[in-house]
Amino acid sequence: MNDGAIQDHYPEEFAHCYGCGRLNEDGLKIKTQWEGDESVCRYEPQPHYTGGFPGFVYGGFLASLIDCHSSGTASAADLRQRGSSPDDETPSRFVTASLRIDFIKPTPMGKILELRSRAIEIKGRKIVVSTELFVDGDVYVRGEAVMVRIPENTRW
Amino acid sequence: MNDGAIQDHYPEEFAHCYGCGRLNEDGLKIKTQWEGDESVCRYEPQPHYTGGFPGFVYGGFLASLIDCHSSGTASAADLRQRGSSPDDETPSRFVTASLRIDFIKPTPMGKILELRSRAIEIKGRKIVVSTELFVDGDVYVRGEAVMVRIPENTRW
Repeated sequence: MNDGAIQDHYPEEFAHCYGCGRLNEDGLKIKTQWEGDESVCRYEPQPHYTGGFPGFVYGGFLASLIDCHSSGTASAADLRQRGSSPDDETPSRFVTASLRIDFIKPTPMGKILELRSRAIEIKGRKIVVSTELFVDGDVYVRGEAVMVRIPENTRW
Repeated sequence: MNDGAIQDHYPEEFAHCYGCGRLNEDGLKIKTQWEGDESVCRYEPQPHYTGGFPGFVYGGFLASLIDCHSSGTASAADLRQRGSSPDDETPSRFVTASLRIDFIKPTPMGKILELRSRAIEIKGRKIVVSTELFVDGDVYVRGEAVMVRIPENTRW
């Protein structure tokens, strides 16, 4: 992706996700881009996304960031492993089969959260994405998501 | 809890969570109550909480429901195992150490989601909460959360 965020290349029909849909006006508009071998997302949560403890980010919000960034990473990694890019072809969409989040320490509000991810396994329709979430260079959250590619003609 | 939702008994200082804080005006106001040995939360997501696929609920939203309902379940189970209730004493607050979510099949929008949970392990400050999320009686999502009680005087 020298081609902007992967989410900007999702087909219009699949671009209404609350987390990362560019067409969801109420949503978070999470973005994913390559930096070398890692995919990166940076986000500063709006003040109302506080958790139960004053001054710290809500765990469900952190799970949302990891969920959508993992989905974007899977779409991008699927293209890259075939030597393709979102400028060459429309990315496939991936859905989450399972998500594991480890909250290492409370994540402070008022900071830019930086998620750095790798596709650690690519096998058939399945891509496993491993993520670390940093604030000022320290790891606060780790995530692992098992993503599954949706066949092109799926309409559920 | 014949005493209303556990979240309505959280101390005011800890009642601003985006997911379940009664004092967060922009939040989801997730509620947890006992029904027998299970804790139950029912929620119909607002239309903008759609996922990447039209007509289905966003995975990050489902993770948020499970996160806050698990935290509420842990607070309630902590009281109950001591024969106490939120009418007798202020519940302790629990934070999430880890969260595991299995998305079994896509969860439809426009339905009431019913989360049913149990505290399957209570040991020291740690409570493990297992959850199933139902729509019209079928299981769509399973979750397991490891919750940790915060000492009373913690101010981070």
